[in-house]
Amino acid sequence: MATNSPFAAWQAQAQAHTEATLARLLPAPAATPAQLHEAMRYAALDGGKRLRPLLTQAAAALGNADAAALDYALAAVECIHVYSLVHDDMPEMDNDSLRRGKPTCHVAYDQATALLVGDALQTLAFDLLARPTALPPARQLRMVHTLATASGSLGMAGGQAIDLQNVGKAMTQAQLEHMHGLKTGALIRAAVALGALACADIGDSQLAQLDTYAAKLGLAFQVIDDVLDCEADTATLGKTAGKDAQADKPTYVQLLGLAAARAYAETLVAEAIAALAAFDARADYLRALAEFVTARKH
Amino acid sequence: MATNSPFAAWQAQAQAHTEATLARLLPAPAATPAQLHEAMRYAALDGGKRLRPLLTQAAAALGNADAAALDYALAAVECIHVYSLVHDDMPEMDNDSLRRGKPTCHVAYDQATALLVGDALQTLAFDLLARPTALPPARQLRMVHTLATASGSLGMAGGQAIDLQNVGKAMTQAQLEHMHGLKTGALIRAAVALGALACADIGDSQLAQLDTYAAKLGLAFQVIDDVLDCEADTATLGKTAGKDAQADKPTYVQLLGLAAARAYAETLVAEAIAALAAFDARADYLRALAEFVTARKH
Repeated sequence: MATNSPFAAWQAQAQAHTEATLARLLPAPAATPAQLHEAMRYAALDGGKRLRPLLTQAAAALGNADAAALDYALAAVECIHVYSLVHDDMPEMDNDSLRRGKPTCHVAYDQATALLVGDALQTLAFDLLARPTALPPARQLRMVHTLATASGSLGMAGGQAIDLQNVGKAMTQAQLEHMHGLKTGALIRAAVALGALACADIGDSQLAQLDTYAAKLGLAFQVIDDVLDCEADTATLGKTAGKDAQADKPTYVQLLGLAAARAYAETLVAEAIAALAAFDARADYLRALAEFVTARKH
Repeated sequence: MATNSPFAAWQAQAQAHTEATLARLLPAPAATPAQLHEAMRYAALDGGKRLRPLLTQAAAALGNADAAALDYALAAVECIHVYSLVHDDMPEMDNDSLRRGKPTCHVAYDQATALLVGDALQTLAFDLLARPTALPPARQLRMVHTLATASGSLGMAGGQAIDLQNVGKAMTQAQLEHMHGLKTGALIRAAVALGALACADIGDSQLAQLDTYAAKLGLAFQVIDDVLDCEADTATLGKTAGKDAQADKPTYVQLLGLAAARAYAETLVAEAIAALAAFDARADYLRALAEFVTARKH
């Protein structure tokens, strides 16, 4: 992806908008309790590819988005993602010390603070989605429900539990895909759905097509994550490289081999793009994001 | 409170209804991931006074409650309370091994599971409140927002952060009340508000009177908690007694002395009941719950 393409310009603008929106919607660093709010901002600001908020904004480009609802949606999705990273990095989980190129929250602060940072970021996500907007309240309630089911024990948190239970165990490809479908796929699907739901003019048949796109993309993202974890060095990745193999976690690379894993990711991306066939050029950001996922180096 | 009073009968029925509702709304223990769901049920079922769901049900007795919305509300409030207990008991926080008369979640399972149990119970609370009911969606959205603001960094989680920061430090009564107002008061106020919001016929002026009641009651509850923690033994309390003093946490007993702390709680309860003056006999459960708080032994 050339850096001077229209997509690159949109991506840079959408990332900047994500950062500015999070900075605006997170509690002020001086608000009591200041240390908790500082730590929430430390964990959430200035980091990451912002894939999920990019997907939310790209999906919202398909319709007539309510600006406030879209901002709440992209911030809510990223708050859930960051809360999961903060808790996953803790000693009782992955025990990781580096995230997005800086010390993890429990290292920069302490474990009790990291626990509360994750808890409070999760709450903030639902707080944001329930704030008044011009969207019909029933549609906003659907956004809350979509994010909650994607994040809970039958979604992201459930995937994390399955992941922990399978350390050191062999998994079939179907089991691995089920686990990742929950652990990372559910929130990626919610990110796309929330962007579309922020547009009152996007209907259920379009939402279904977008969900196929998002499910394929989410899986491709995880396959590439395994490829990168195997290939990349820590400096490029911004998090500890090779940690899955060290932790004896099942990966696509282990299951398929490196070249076949990369080829599988490319097939999934093609399927994701095919699911967008009914959409016009306004879906080009979603198409480009799918290609970006397999092209990325970190 | 005589055990054969109308209040005692209502209380027993409301507690049984809470238990049955939680058992129905928590994910089935056999649903994947089974260990996480078992642990969520271990933490949430068969325990506690269920004060918050009792308050939700007592407030809902003032109007014409939507039965589904009320069930979601009482379960959501209890899910938030239980998630906070599970995380507060963890080694990085209070490091407690006994809760509601049985081993705490991280002791019965492990720390990673307890972390996920708390995370997923919080998510479930918002999932439940966003499920379709016959209430106007705007009112349901207000329930989501009420619970989220009560639980987050400007509510319960914020109070927990302030509590942790003040271990071993002297606090004024105003500082202690601010901390408890967030840590326990905010969720007690939300419990009452959600019960009232589940009734489409309860208006904002009644909600304001109920909030005064709940704020006074929440404070009384915490003062009595400190009194009981100082007086009671571990067997009666169902959790480790004297742990606040051991942890060098500021308490009302430390600040006011035992007798004055108990007298203060009784004044607060009288003020809580006075805030209900405009309500008829349908508020008797709320009145009796206020008296129950100072009469309780554990």
